Amino acid sequence: MQAALSRPKLISLAAGFTDNPTLPTEISRKLLDEILRAPETGQPAMQYGITAGEYNLRELTARHLQKLDGVNPAAPSHSPGRLMITGGSQQLLYMTLEALCDEGDIILVEDPTYFVFLSILQSRGIRARGVKLERNGIDLAHLGLVLQLLKKSGGLRRVKALYLVSYFQNPTGVSTSFEKKSRILKMLKSFEGAAGHPIYLLEDGAYRELRFDGPDIPSALMAPGATGRVIYTGTYSKPFAPGARIGFGILPEPLFTAVQRVKGNHDFGTANLLQQLLARALETGLYDEHVAKIQKRYRQKAQVMKQALAEHFPPEVEIWESGGGLYFWARLPRKISAGMNSGVFKAALEADVLYVPGELCYADDPARRKPANEMRISFGSASGENISEGIKRLGNVLKKFID
Amino acid sequence: MQAALSRPKLISLAAGFTDNPTLPTEISRKLLDEILRAPETGQPAMQYGITAGEYNLRELTARHLQKLDGVNPAAPSHSPGRLMITGGSQQLLYMTLEALCDEGDIILVEDPTYFVFLSILQSRGIRARGVKLERNGIDLAHLGLVLQLLKKSGGLRRVKALYLVSYFQNPTGVSTSFEKKSRILKMLKSFEGAAGHPIYLLEDGAYRELRFDGPDIPSALMAPGATGRVIYTGTYSKPFAPGARIGFGILPEPLFTAVQRVKGNHDFGTANLLQQLLARALETGLYDEHVAKIQKRYRQKAQVMKQALAEHFPPEVEIWESGGGLYFWARLPRKISAGMNSGVFKAALEADVLYVPGELCYADDPARRKPANEMRISFGSASGENISEGIKRLGNVLKKFID
Repeated sequence: MQAALSRPKLISLAAGFTDNPTLPTEISRKLLDEILRAPETGQPAMQYGITAGEYNLRELTARHLQKLDGVNPAAPSHSPGRLMITGGSQQLLYMTLEALCDEGDIILVEDPTYFVFLSILQSRGIRARGVKLERNGIDLAHLGLVLQLLKKSGGLRRVKALYLVSYFQNPTGVSTSFEKKSRILKMLKSFEGAAGHPIYLLEDGAYRELRFDGPDIPSALMAPGATGRVIYTGTYSKPFAPGARIGFGILPEPLFTAVQRVKGNHDFGTANLLQQLLARALETGLYDEHVAKIQKRYRQKAQVMKQALAEHFPPEVEIWESGGGLYFWARLPRKISAGMNSGVFKAALEADVLYVPGELCYADDPARRKPANEMRISFGSASGENISEGIKRLGNVLKKFID
Repeated sequence: MQAALSRPKLISLAAGFTDNPTLPTEISRKLLDEILRAPETGQPAMQYGITAGEYNLRELTARHLQKLDGVNPAAPSHSPGRLMITGGSQQLLYMTLEALCDEGDIILVEDPTYFVFLSILQSRGIRARGVKLERNGIDLAHLGLVLQLLKKSGGLRRVKALYLVSYFQNPTGVSTSFEKKSRILKMLKSFEGAAGHPIYLLEDGAYRELRFDGPDIPSALMAPGATGRVIYTGTYSKPFAPGARIGFGILPEPLFTAVQRVKGNHDFGTANLLQQLLARALETGLYDEHVAKIQKRYRQKAQVMKQALAEHFPPEVEIWESGGGLYFWARLPRKISAGMNSGVFKAALEADVLYVPGELCYADDPARRKPANEMRISFGSASGENISEGIKRLGNVLKKFID
């Protein structure tokens, strides 16, 4: 695989990278020039700052989230005082788990889910329990069943949160409706008595702003009973620039204080210069302009992928299209494996095309076999031409295995 | 204290901030403009990168360290392949402890030492054991005694490393000679058989380049027997800009791979844009020019502090001057406390001057009482005028308590 990756003709539909040509290099050049030109903004941007993040970025980010969720600036649910700035939302996910969980605790996850999140859990000795994922979010009946079984086995006392990638999920592209979020929250609450502690809903909105189809959905912060129970994480990496890695999150107390302490130990605050870049992009409206531009771009690229899939993929493959994010999800007939060691994966590599095997996104769970017949295919970083050609190559490989 | 901190007239000699007026705002503006202007450098700088850090910065940083230590680029001890880039060296310290230690393990530290390091240890359930600090580094006889006692008590099996802030130490300004580093390493090795595993020397060179007096000292990477045993961490925060938070470290295997895995879970790589800024600063020689400039600046500021101390501090106070870094260390007569709840601290606050109580820098250790009669006073961020005035105010407070 190492050898394949260095092949010049390889088309990667695997990486979660964003679109290169639309990265905001010009905007950033202009804004950084402005920030650094004046000593009164340049010097603070190059100095240490505050562990939880700079006040102006926290205010602007809170206002941005308020706008997305349609609440007024006084809403305590979206207060800048509860908002933390981190090195990407990944760091916030990590620190939240560090503050919230002990070894042996359980986090409920969508089945499949974001594979780096599973890697965090594993590294910290936290157990993942999968909840079946449907086209419109997790299966509520299955969530109820999993919670019941955990209650019976005594495991419920170790359940600390449910992790939900609620917008254009990684890897499946699935979004969770607001109604479903509300019902999830209600169900989690109904088990808190037996658990003996809060069960948080950890909502990961990383892909929220990469939306090119359909209306935005309010976050779980807006659901009835959200107070004190919803942790919401977001990022500017995907909609702005991964290279200026700024993430954020809203956390209820006592978690906010606990995570702030963790952040103090990890790095006592994310690089100020990047925080000031994002603050100025938000302030000037250039951020919103940029997001509108990339939404258009991803709409086009998703369209190219959709057409290529229709043309080149065998009809036996079920495709889950998405209205946003970076991924389509392809499900082969059950008997065909697309896993890391499968013939399909090897043949794809030989044909110079790469995808993420879906099996990597499933938690270890003795209660079910990991499905191996799925693929995450990304239209994020490849050019339109390469998307078409990559899907064609992949389609040809699949035809051979399905015939 | 909160109230005092917001007083406009407060002079802080407490913060470990660097000098504002000499922050490299102009250099950074120019270099970022160059990077972002050309798509072939701008786009990669704004995209995701590599978990361990971008190749060019790793190469340039390795070369920089090679130059400081006076070795040739082929030296395996300073290989870019063993060098990792992080969000400040703080993050690397954290991740190294995460990879190296289990709860209940022991890290030997200088007594006193960097207080955020103690906070990391505490947060991870790692025990600190202090080794007496003298004007030229830790007391070797005491190190031997501590190791012997740990061997007797069975604790040696939990000792994983000795942490050494070897250049212009935080908080005391003390530097450790190369000979002492070599002897420490030899002594640690002699206890490895009884420990049953390697005991690393974790050398923190954060202040190394803020040197304004005397020659540079080679790092412990150069000591006999360093191979596989020395972890060296450094940072561009102090000599360049805290707001562009880039740290680095050299780690032996298997630690490098383990820490890389941790970094993958924390944030899968530090912001590329900042890495490219530092790489270009190093490449163009602007970094070296800048370091020469701030060395001159800190020499002046240290001189101002030295004069003010001579003029305003009572002769009963012992001053440890430093040839670099940001701090002087003041030791009051034993019976006078300068701790967080002391009369001295309160009176200083009332006189609008702030310092770091030395007691915060001592590990919890039932074997000795924490000395409370010391202060860390910083000439880093205050202006020359404020240094003089702050020391005068502090001197007046001390005179009252010493009389």
